[in-house]
Order: sequence, then structure tokens, then C-alpha cells
Amino acid sequence: MSTQNKPISLKDVVIDKGFWADRQLTNREHTLPAIQHQMEKTGRVDAWKLDWQPGQPKPHIFWDSDNGKWIEAMAYSLTTHPDPELEAVADHVIDLIEKAQQPDGYLNIFFTAVEPENKLKNLRDWHEFYDAGHLIEAAVAYYEATGKRKLLDVMSRYADYIDSLFGPNEGQKRGYDGHPEVELALVRLYHATGNERYLKLSKYFVDERGQEPQYFDLEAIARGEDPKQYWAKTYRYCQAHKPVREQDIATGHSVRAAYLYSGMADIALETDDEALKKACLAIWDDLNEHHLYITGGLGPAHANEGFTVPYDLPNETAYAETCAAIALVFWAWRMFRLDPDSKYIDTLERALYNNVISGVSHEGSTFFYANPLAAYPNVTPHGNWSGIIGEKYYRRSEWFDCSCCPPNLARLVASLGQYIYSTDGDTLYVHLYAANHATLDVNGRSVKVTQETNYPWEGAVGVKVEPEQAGRFKVALRVPAWCREYSVSVNGEKVTSTPVKGYVVIDREWAAGDRISLDLAMPIERVMPHPRIRHDAGNVALQRGPVVYCLEEADNGANLANVVIPNDAKLTAEFDPNLLGGVTVIKAEGQRVEPSAWKGGLYQAQSAQAVAEKPVTVTAIPYFLWANRAEGEMRVWIRAN
Amino acid sequence: MSTQNKPISLKDVVIDKGFWADRQLTNREHTLPAIQHQMEKTGRVDAWKLDWQPGQPKPHIFWDSDNGKWIEAMAYSLTTHPDPELEAVADHVIDLIEKAQQPDGYLNIFFTAVEPENKLKNLRDWHEFYDAGHLIEAAVAYYEATGKRKLLDVMSRYADYIDSLFGPNEGQKRGYDGHPEVELALVRLYHATGNERYLKLSKYFVDERGQEPQYFDLEAIARGEDPKQYWAKTYRYCQAHKPVREQDIATGHSVRAAYLYSGMADIALETDDEALKKACLAIWDDLNEHHLYITGGLGPAHANEGFTVPYDLPNETAYAETCAAIALVFWAWRMFRLDPDSKYIDTLERALYNNVISGVSHEGSTFFYANPLAAYPNVTPHGNWSGIIGEKYYRRSEWFDCSCCPPNLARLVASLGQYIYSTDGDTLYVHLYAANHATLDVNGRSVKVTQETNYPWEGAVGVKVEPEQAGRFKVALRVPAWCREYSVSVNGEKVTSTPVKGYVVIDREWAAGDRISLDLAMPIERVMPHPRIRHDAGNVALQRGPVVYCLEEADNGANLANVVIPNDAKLTAEFDPNLLGGVTVIKAEGQRVEPSAWKGGLYQAQSAQAVAEKPVTVTAIPYFLWANRAEGEMRVWIRAN
Repeated sequence: MSTQNKPISLKDVVIDKGFWADRQLTNREHTLPAIQHQMEKTGRVDAWKLDWQPGQPKPHIFWDSDNGKWIEAMAYSLTTHPDPELEAVADHVIDLIEKAQQPDGYLNIFFTAVEPENKLKNLRDWHEFYDAGHLIEAAVAYYEATGKRKLLDVMSRYADYIDSLFGPNEGQKRGYDGHPEVELALVRLYHATGNERYLKLSKYFVDERGQEPQYFDLEAIARGEDPKQYWAKTYRYCQAHKPVREQDIATGHSVRAAYLYSGMADIALETDDEALKKACLAIWDDLNEHHLYITGGLGPAHANEGFTVPYDLPNETAYAETCAAIALVFWAWRMFRLDPDSKYIDTLERALYNNVISGVSHEGSTFFYANPLAAYPNVTPHGNWSGIIGEKYYRRSEWFDCSCCPPNLARLVASLGQYIYSTDGDTLYVHLYAANHATLDVNGRSVKVTQETNYPWEGAVGVKVEPEQAGRFKVALRVPAWCREYSVSVNGEKVTSTPVKGYVVIDREWAAGDRISLDLAMPIERVMPHPRIRHDAGNVALQRGPVVYCLEEADNGANLANVVIPNDAKLTAEFDPNLLGGVTVIKAEGQRVEPSAWKGGLYQAQSAQAVAEKPVTVTAIPYFLWANRAEGEMRVWIRAN
Repeated sequence: MSTQNKPISLKDVVIDKGFWADRQLTNREHTLPAIQHQMEKTGRVDAWKLDWQPGQPKPHIFWDSDNGKWIEAMAYSLTTHPDPELEAVADHVIDLIEKAQQPDGYLNIFFTAVEPENKLKNLRDWHEFYDAGHLIEAAVAYYEATGKRKLLDVMSRYADYIDSLFGPNEGQKRGYDGHPEVELALVRLYHATGNERYLKLSKYFVDERGQEPQYFDLEAIARGEDPKQYWAKTYRYCQAHKPVREQDIATGHSVRAAYLYSGMADIALETDDEALKKACLAIWDDLNEHHLYITGGLGPAHANEGFTVPYDLPNETAYAETCAAIALVFWAWRMFRLDPDSKYIDTLERALYNNVISGVSHEGSTFFYANPLAAYPNVTPHGNWSGIIGEKYYRRSEWFDCSCCPPNLARLVASLGQYIYSTDGDTLYVHLYAANHATLDVNGRSVKVTQETNYPWEGAVGVKVEPEQAGRFKVALRVPAWCREYSVSVNGEKVTSTPVKGYVVIDREWAAGDRISLDLAMPIERVMPHPRIRHDAGNVALQRGPVVYCLEEADNGANLANVVIPNDAKLTAEFDPNLLGGVTVIKAEGQRVEPSAWKGGLYQAQSAQAVAEKPVTVTAIPYFLWANRAEGEMRVWIRAN
């Protein structure tokens, strides 16, 4: 077990230009204000005043978590871009939260103001600890960003209260939350406060999950309900069907799943728990071998917002929730710490550049909850009434009743810097490529690192390494799985070492002025689906670097199912500086049948009608940029013949 | 308007051997006993005693209709195959029904025995006239089969009662049923009794549908409900969104739709109503141009059991209810009478040989409600919890809570003889090809007709025409749309006349001993989908004669999405006498990728891995015979490259 691999502090990395600087600017200038507007407009801020009256619209049981992720996003933004006005917004909410805390430490809008009689009576469905988890993460992030302890103290008191009620001791309830999240949050609280009580509570929640007698059964019976009438039909929905160390498949609600697996990885790492690590590795493999969209999306089904069976990856109806892909980033990051291997960062990067940032519009103020891989009129990933009542194309929304995704996106984008590097002893890992400069502690040595790159549009990355004092240490550069030809040189001299677990390790004396040149060949790849993915059979996807492409009606007209890109068609990458902030598009010499060439009805014998395909130039854009122009069809998997 | 085209009587046609004789034998010996067993076992017969007590399982509001269709099926079977034991079964049920009739004429199990307070309070949802309609059809059929008037009189009294309460007059309610069926039934009652009151009532229901003020709104308000909270979201669901003469698309619940359109065609025919005929023609064209599966299935969506948007024809999740395809047979038959053209019979035949008889197993006692065009493990047309909770393959069931399909199938199969011929003045139409002998009245002349054929496996049809007295009249033979090469001869002499509206008309002096030979070329056709059907793009279906084929795992192994039948592949038809009663199968020289040949994960760059397709012999069986062997995958649309 490697417990040596250490995250770096967000404070130490400045993303100063390029792709992610643009995204972070949009996040600060458009996404955070849009979220603030919606939080205030929908009453999510004032709800902390706990003055709900019968007859008024009820606060939602998730509102606490929306506040938590929003504060966390503000905290990260303040870390890299101080802004007194934004800090005042956060302070105001935190003041309200502090006042909302009950004398015993309990803290929850809905179950204090609306249904106090139901407090902590349905952990299976009612998300109280999930809410707590997100507020704890906010508290830690805000403390680290500003040094202000108010929310940290509030959440510590609430965590103490939960810890007093739940646990293995006489008189305690043996419960845990149906929606995991508090597990990983408590580990962060432990690190921020140094109080082991929170680590133990997190471990207790992980250990207790799925044990018999099933707490959710007991709790349902206590409410006078029949546990068998559980609406989600199976405790797999909340990953509580068996003890977590016996679990080996990705199952149930996908956001719950990835948060739980993140918490499991945290506990495995903190406590050197080999059985828990083994479960994490098995579930990871199952996800990556059987359940992951090419976009890094997970959870294909609307019904359970989650997993179904292996290789079940429908495109039009793909749920692939934004939050699930974000949670996968968190989980992948923790898996790397458990088992240092670039495969985890490959999945992180797949999710990041595709499903995750598809979740927000280019201009930054509308959001996707579900991220399908094909779009047609009257089809949504939210069930099939859409075609029946004549809905339009599925498009991003300003907000949702359950608005988990927008602040989740904002916190990830704002905190992206912390995923670029990590250190392990005298090794400096470079995981992601993005223009930035950072000052990092490598085994006690301060090293300034500067990346210059136009990634993901180009594969050339320059890394300047400037130790405060010259000396020997290692720099480990990730060679992405999508890349099969690359070269590395230091100060113009070629480095020939074979990658170890996906990293080229350069072990040398470093001194100010040293420059690494990494060149990742970034051809356009035709990607084939596994032969068991029936939904994609006969199709290919186009990928260049980490970016998966799609066809949109805006470029190619309607009826995208008729577009064929033959296996021998020429593919060309072109940078279009005017498209959505500057984008590399792919042009292909394809073919298509036009419906106007079709004579007759729904079905025609081939022997009666020859319908010729015509040559056509096809344009593909990055999947993450879909639905930013005119409404229309979209398709990731393209017919190959 | 042709009101001259007359159906013949079922009594006059004997299907004595071949495909339909086998099916009718199975229907008598297995299907009807299975239905009787289930009707009795589930309490659907004894429910007529109206002795339900609180605490007992409630009769279903559809049970009356199950009884109706079952009695109707028995009536048709008794017509062609008298059976005193079966007749006693029917008489027993009819006795119970008679006793269940209320003094005022009202008749309904649920709203007499269980919720009398809700009688006739929710025509939108509660199906009382739908129930009445099926019992009326049963009454007419049983009267015609046996001469017994008991049920006919009961149902006339009930129809009189309905007629007294509903209509345009002062003090009457302006209502109609949310589930059409009674409209066509009342026209049958009118013909059986000669009482025009029933024709007028039927016309009233047709005319009133969709008028403002909307009756379903008024009724909902009277129940204290908000009409806007209608669970089905739109009155398109029950084709009541606008007056029927303004309707021009197939919409809503597909069984309701096709029963309504049948009733509309009846009224158009009976009353020479050109506006109504025009609506029927427009809706028919919309269905056939935009909404019909190649199997004759209709209504792709589970959510509304009905129509969505044009060209939306998903395969795995196709609902395509058995009852909808049966109702389409009824509607198509009426459309031919309105507008004599073989296109209606082409659709009738498409539904009959594919979606309809897919609804019952080969051995006759299990049933499909939905008839998807592709089957994979953990996928059902009934929503996507199946994969989540790990259901098996979708297979036929012995019965359903709402068991409309089994008796509907039984009545259609038992009455098939009446769709083979019709007459129009001095023209004898031959619509369907099936071994049979019939004695028909052609303009007052008795003509014995004998068909000898192995249709649908072979396209050769011999028709012996034996008028009681020699004389001139016309025989019109349908040339199916699937057939593009045929020849006709009489007594060995070639007939060269051009078909008129799809019928070769032979106008000559006929005398006993005359023999027509019709030879319909029946090559295997690769059928292409319209380019707007995105679900089928790049695929072909195999069809031979009227029979659509499919691949099953039982013959071809799993992963059928990997099977490719190239456009130049040799296709061979072979009769297999041992397969499911004797079936023509199709063998094709295809190719496939085997998952075992795949190295690596879910996605692989083509440049990194060449996965060769291997040649393989592919076997296709008729779609209607799927799911009669080992569980496994099925697929109608096959990749063409």
C-alpha cells in the first residue's frame, strides 16, 4: 500500500493560461454568479433562517448539500483568485448556517424547519448525512482558503453529534446514510482538524454498510413500513446489499456509488486496510471493463440513476449524470494514491474532458444533469414521455429542482489545480497537462514547475523545473493511455526510459533552467467499441488526445444516423479559432444517404430500390461542446460503413 | 364511397389444412383451454356472481372485457368446429352475466360489486363502455354462431340503458369512453338486431369525441379533481384532443387508437360520411408512413402504450402490443371496405403473419403482451428496471393482470376465415391465401371456392372456382405488395390483365372445374429501412413472402449485434420439417466478430488493434416463432456491413 503519494495544495498551483484558465475564468465570471442567483432566487439561502411556514413551498431535503457545494466552490475560487465581494457572500451564508445549528449540534434545513418529527428516521432515503458531508467539505475548503474556522467549528459540532448517536456502542444506532458522501467528507474533516474521532466515524459508516441486521429494514419497520416495499427495489441501489468488503461490482445509483467508493479508498489508505483496498480494486476494474461510456460517463439508466448490467451502454437514453463523472474524478484520484498507476488518471482525464465539462455550457450558466451520447428530437434521458408529449431537443437548463450538478461542476473546475501534480517521496508526479506554474514541496525541497502547453489541442508540453536549490529527484510524467507515440527530452537530450505504471520517470540532478519537452503524438483515432456493446456495433468514435468528438446537426444537417465515415476515409484536424472560444475540429470524407433520395414508404426491398450514398464532408466537434449552438441532433458513435 | 364490398360469413369458410388449420387446431386445443383455466383460476368467471367482499382481492375493471373476448373466441370456434362441451362453458358464463345485469340494464363487475358509488363517474379512465363493447361483440358472435339470443338481449338492454343516459338531448350526459371499442361493437349490434338506435349511439360517441367543453374535464371537476393533473398528460392519449374529423395523425394509446379508427371507418361506411372517411384515410397514411414496425407492430412506447413521433421505432424497447396489431387487422379490414385497395390488406397481412402471431407461443398457451424486435438479457419493453434488478430474457407469460391480449388472439385466429374473401357486386375478392374451401354468394350466385396452397412458405396458390350454375362474374386476386413477379393462369391459359388497386381481376364465364393458378415469386428480400429510422440505419431485415425473419441466439449464439450479412451474401431458403411444426428458415453466409477475439478494454483505437470478422453461416427463423426455444437474444434488423 502506498500511503506516500501526497496531494499538493491548491494554493500552490496557478493555472495562468490556456484551456483550463479559460474554463476557470468562465467559472468565476459566469457559473458562480449564475449559481448564486439561483440559490438566492429559489430560497436556498434564506431557508437557513428556518422560518418556513405551512402553506409555503417546502425546502428540498437536498438544499443543505447545494449550499455546501456552492460554498466549497467559492472557497476554491477564493484560494486562487481572492475576491472580497465573493468572500462576503460566503460569509453571509455561513453566518446563517451557524445560526441554524440546533443546541445539540444537529443541522438540517428540512428536518428542523419543516418535519422535525422525522429527523433521522429515514437514513435510507432522506440524505441527512449526505447533506452533512457536503457542508463538511465546504467547511474544510473554506477554512483552508480563508483561515476562517466558523463553518469548520459548526460542522465539527454536528459531526460530534452524529458520532454520539451512531456507532457500535450500547445505546447507539447502527445506521449509515443511504446516500454516501459523509464518509469521504469525515476523512477531510479529520485531516483539517487532526481529530481522529472523525476518521473513526467514517470507518464505522464504511464498515457498517450492508451488515445484517440491515439497518434500513429496522428503520423502515420503526416507521411502520414494510421494508420489502422499498421503492428502489434493491439495496444495491445504495450499495448496501452486502458488506462493502464483499462487494466487487459497480452497482446502484452511480453518484452514491462513486462517493462511497471514494470513501472506501480513503479509509483503505488511512488505515492500511487490504480487504477494503481489494474491494476498491475489484469495483474499479468492473466499472472500467463493463460500465464506462467513452465519455467517462457512468450509470446508463434513468430509473435508478445508475448501473444496470455489463456492456449496457445505450446512447440516446444514457443518463451519465454530471455528478457521477465528477465523483469518478474524486474516486480515480484516491485510487491512484492507493495503487499508483496511470490507469486511474487516464479514467480521470477521460471523465474530465468529456462527460464532466459537457455538464456546463460554453458560456457557463446552463447545465446538463444527464449527458447522453446521442440526441434526437423528442428523446431525453429522463424517460419516454418526451416523445409522447412532444418535447424538444434535450438542452442544458439554468437550474434543477434537485440541483446537485451545477455547484459540483463549479467546485471541480475551481479546484482543478490540485489534480495536476502530486508527490511521493522524492518523486514529483505530473498527472495532467495544462499551462500553469506551481511551487511544490518535493521531499522537503521547494521546486518551481512551469508547464507551457496548448493541451488538449496539441500534444507538445514544455515543463520548466526550477528547484530552489539544485539536487537529485525524480520527475514522473504521465504517458496517457490514448497516446502510443511520444518523446521526452531534457534540455534537448532524449530520455529513453521505459514508463513505469504509465509514467516516464526522469531521475537526475535538476537545476534552475532545466527544461523537459514532452511530445505526445495526437493523431485522430477511430475508436472501436468492445464487441459486447451492442448499441455501438458497426460504429466508431473519433478521439484526439483525451477529447472525444461528436457530430452535431449544426455542422452536418439532420439524420446523423445516415452519416458514414468509412474506415479508409481521410480525417483531418483543424483548429477553428472562431468556434466556441477556439476548438480543434475534425473533418472527414464521409458518405450519407439523404432521406430525400428515398422513394416509397417505411420499408423497401433492396432489390426494388437502390439508394446511393453521396460523398459528404463531415465535421466533428468535441463532445463537451455539444448543444452550444442551434438545437439539433448529436451523435458520438458514427457508422463506419 | 364503396359500401358495396361485403364481408362473407365465417360459417361459409372452412380452413381445412396448412398453416392456418394448424394454428386454429392449436387455438382450439391449447389456447382456449389455457384461457379458460386462467379465467376460472383468477376468479374472472365467478366474479359475475357479484359477491366480492371487502378484504378480498378486487376484480379488475377490465375483467368484463376479458370475458367478452373469450366468449367471442369460443363463438367463432363453435362456428367452424361445433363442440357441445365448449358451448356449455360459454352458456354457463352467459348465464352468470345475465344474472349480473342490474334492473336498469347496467352491467359491470367492478362497478356493481366493488365500487357502485363510482359507477359511470370516470369514463376517461375506467373503461365501462370498453367492457360493454367487448361483451356486445361476444353477444353478436355467439348469436351468429349458435342462434342463442340470451347474451344479445342482455347486451341490447345494457346498450339501451347507455343510450338513455348519454347523448345530445336535454338531461343526457355528453360523454364517451376514454378507451374506444364500443363504437365498432354498436355497429355490429345494429347489424345483428337491425335496431338503428345502436348505429346512432355509435355515431354519437364518434361525433362527440374531442368536442368542447371536454367531457373528461367536466367529469374530473365533478370528481373534485384538477383535469390538468391527468396522469396521461394529454388527451391525445385517448384520441380526444380534438374532434375526430379534425384528426389526421395516429396518436396516443395504440389499442385505443386502432379500435377508434375502426369505429370511425364503420360510421363513415354506414353513413356515407366523407369527412370521417377523409380523417380515416389521413390517419391510415400517417400510421403506414411514419409509425409501423416492419412486423406490423404499432405503438413503440411503454409509457403510453402507444405512439410517439414519426420514425421513432426502437427495437429492444418496442412495445408493439399484441392487441394493437390485432386491432390494426380490424381497422385495415374496414379501410378496405371504405376504399377498396390492396394496400390495406398488405398491412393486415404484415400484422397478421408477424406481430399478431408472435403474441402466442407455438404450443399455444403462453402469450406476449409486447412484441419487441430485438431481445437482450435484462431488457424488457416494460421500462428499464429490468436490467437493474437482474431480470432474465423477456419471455411469453401464461397470463397477465391485465390480460387483454390472449383472448384477443384467440378470437382473431378462430375467425380468420372471414378475412380471406369478400364480395362486391359480381366480384369475388380473394384477399388472403390459405388452404380452405368456401361456399360464397356472389351477387346471388352460389360459388364454391377451394384454395390449395402451402402459403406462406410457398407462393403457388391453386384456386378452384365452382359456381352452382355457370356464368359470368369476376374473381379478383390480390397481388401482395411484397411480390414483384407473379403469374396467373386459368385452366393453363395465362391471364395478362394489369392489376387494379392491387388485384388481378379475371372477368369471364366460370363453370365448375375451372382452376386458377397463381404463382407469387417469393424470393428472400433484404428490406431496407427508411433513412429516417435511426434505430435501423445500416441494417437490413430479411423477409420472404409476408414473413419477416429474425436471428435467434438458439441458432446463432449470443452477441447478435456482431453478426453481419453483407449485401452480396448468398441467402438460401430451406424448409425444416422438424422445426416448430415445419418452417422455412433462411441461411446466409455472414461474418462476425467474436468477443473472444477482442483484446483489451471497452474501447480500443482501430490503429492499435485489428479485429477480424470471421465467416459464419447465419440462420434466420420467422419472427413470429421467436422465443419458443432456449432463452437468448433475438434481432430482426441485421447489420449489413
